[in-house]
Amino acid sequence: MKRLAVVAALVALSACAEAPMRATGDLGLVVERADGALQLVETSHNTRLSRVSGLGDLSHASVVYSRDERYAFVFGRDGGLSKVDMLSGRVVGRVMQSGNSIGGAISQDGRLVAVANYTPGGVRVFDTDTLEMVADIPALGADGQTSKVVGLEDAPGNRFVFSLYDSGEIWLADLKDPKKPAIRKFTGIGKQPYDALVTEDGRYYMAGLFGEDGIAMVDLWNPEAGVRRILDHYGKGQQPLPVYKMPHLEGWAASGTQAFLPAIGRHEVLVVDTTTWREVGRIAVAGQPVFAMLRPDGRQMWVNFALPDNGKVQVIDVPSLSVVKTIEPGPGVLHMEFTPRGERVWLSSRDADHVTVWDTETLEQVAELPASKPSGIFFTARAHRIGL
Amino acid sequence: MKRLAVVAALVALSACAEAPMRATGDLGLVVERADGALQLVETSHNTRLSRVSGLGDLSHASVVYSRDERYAFVFGRDGGLSKVDMLSGRVVGRVMQSGNSIGGAISQDGRLVAVANYTPGGVRVFDTDTLEMVADIPALGADGQTSKVVGLEDAPGNRFVFSLYDSGEIWLADLKDPKKPAIRKFTGIGKQPYDALVTEDGRYYMAGLFGEDGIAMVDLWNPEAGVRRILDHYGKGQQPLPVYKMPHLEGWAASGTQAFLPAIGRHEVLVVDTTTWREVGRIAVAGQPVFAMLRPDGRQMWVNFALPDNGKVQVIDVPSLSVVKTIEPGPGVLHMEFTPRGERVWLSSRDADHVTVWDTETLEQVAELPASKPSGIFFTARAHRIGL
Repeated sequence: MKRLAVVAALVALSACAEAPMRATGDLGLVVERADGALQLVETSHNTRLSRVSGLGDLSHASVVYSRDERYAFVFGRDGGLSKVDMLSGRVVGRVMQSGNSIGGAISQDGRLVAVANYTPGGVRVFDTDTLEMVADIPALGADGQTSKVVGLEDAPGNRFVFSLYDSGEIWLADLKDPKKPAIRKFTGIGKQPYDALVTEDGRYYMAGLFGEDGIAMVDLWNPEAGVRRILDHYGKGQQPLPVYKMPHLEGWAASGTQAFLPAIGRHEVLVVDTTTWREVGRIAVAGQPVFAMLRPDGRQMWVNFALPDNGKVQVIDVPSLSVVKTIEPGPGVLHMEFTPRGERVWLSSRDADHVTVWDTETLEQVAELPASKPSGIFFTARAHRIGL
Repeated sequence: MKRLAVVAALVALSACAEAPMRATGDLGLVVERADGALQLVETSHNTRLSRVSGLGDLSHASVVYSRDERYAFVFGRDGGLSKVDMLSGRVVGRVMQSGNSIGGAISQDGRLVAVANYTPGGVRVFDTDTLEMVADIPALGADGQTSKVVGLEDAPGNRFVFSLYDSGEIWLADLKDPKKPAIRKFTGIGKQPYDALVTEDGRYYMAGLFGEDGIAMVDLWNPEAGVRRILDHYGKGQQPLPVYKMPHLEGWAASGTQAFLPAIGRHEVLVVDTTTWREVGRIAVAGQPVFAMLRPDGRQMWVNFALPDNGKVQVIDVPSLSVVKTIEPGPGVLHMEFTPRGERVWLSSRDADHVTVWDTETLEQVAELPASKPSGIFFTARAHRIGL
């Protein structure tokens, strides 16, 4: 009888020993958009750990991470804000917080998560522990209309910056006291800001304009200086191509004093001098670029494209500003993500139902993981980076 | 009897439930130098989790992390290389790999850890899984003597870069095939390189010279261009002060196109234009600086000092290049570490037997943790950064 107790105890202990401890630094999520699911992956051996279901409409989903990398906050297109435990692989919180939303950000101190909503237009802010809403900021523009909010980014000082698509504004919200958000509004910043990024240091907020060529930029160290237009008229009056998909601004792609931005409606990546904010060159690429993403050491850039070229990815050598390889990893390349030190990059191929992993030095594929209509790929290292 | 078995099983299960799962993104280690121990800490609530003993002589110890943040590799002064499991808080591997060593680095892909040795002078490289030695590189200089190795850094492409103190050389070692390290040697680079860093992108390796003013710099994208001297003669012939402690180069402190370096033997921090590599200014500070470390957003710099000023820390506002506060957190401030998004900084006060945590916006202390003769503080976010 005593033996039975000992055996039972050993069985129980071994059952819990079988849930191995693991760290969170090499984890990631792959969005399986059609299924409303996420694959939980690890990048040390390129394997899938588990699948997380029940996340609603993930057709344009994005993810931010808690400061300890324990939790992912998933922003679903249907307005769902989900909290996923990266260690248990379970959804531990979920709020249907709007009718339609696009992206979000986590605060510098990790205590707040903000969501950019289309319907109702505005930003809602939630406590990252409880998912209780702590602030509601309707995006009522100076023109009296409520705008869709896009390009929501975090900035140092527990601030959030975002753009109002319809009324052409940028708002800088200080959330140090969530009960009383202090908001500075910039109006007349340009037509239809459609997306934005902040530089790696969180200093400059840049919103791409759809209604005109150019970027609206705010120096967050000197907001009183207002909004500055850079790369104005870069289309130079030439007829843009029909745009099937807007470029995406995600993470500031700067290497030394050069930055790279996808051009709208052109088969080009713009090269910008960050000391003058002037265009200093263009790189001809295979299609209309969606993402232009730099390897973490800044020596290489990977570019994916809109239809009809979304089966291709081009690798650009930064020193020579030239394309060194064109890869076809499988059609429908929606997203790319580098490992934090840059030795590998993961590419999603929605229409091939797989994700591929590439060695960024040899430019060879090293792994493939099946995935159901994969779109976004987000690694936990983003937890430690301003603006991601 | 059956009930006893059930109770035993429940007790066993609750025992393992009591070892809570935790993520690794907000963890850190504080070196307790006199005790040969490490405190395992977390930065979300500023608490100590446990203490790790048995690490030998940690009087100048430093730490790098595995790519998943699971393991810390601790480089002890006595030549000990220890592998610490950040989740269990235990030493899981230890090698006495030399007689006397100073620092080390982890490879880009996380598979190799390299140690810089004084005795015997050279670099030894180990497999991060097994701690088996995979390469041994004696630092035999062109002058026929074996040098102490200093300033060992990782660089993209699974390379390591390091300096030979006695013979005045810099070596660039490619470890893609650990059995056959490919080494490029730069000789006559200057007198007594004493420490080094790589820029955040891993492009430039910079070695500070003790035997002369100036910095020896290698562009790792263009190693065939050789070594370049920058900031030559910055002492400008003025008599340097007696140096009680050398400045330390750790992490590249650059904000926009300005970089900051502690001057040797002077109460100054040098300001360098990174487009020309010329000195463009100096900031007068309270003593001889040891570390000049930028907050991750680049807007603020914290500086600590050598004796007799090692009880002070100064906070510099980068836009104005002026000291905005002088803090006295407790005597013997040996090290400083920012949280990854910069909202807090941790300071060690060896002679006050505590570590303090500061809010970098209010510049107020927010926490204090007892620690026995603390020196280095290292957060797991370093796992994701080139050169750290």
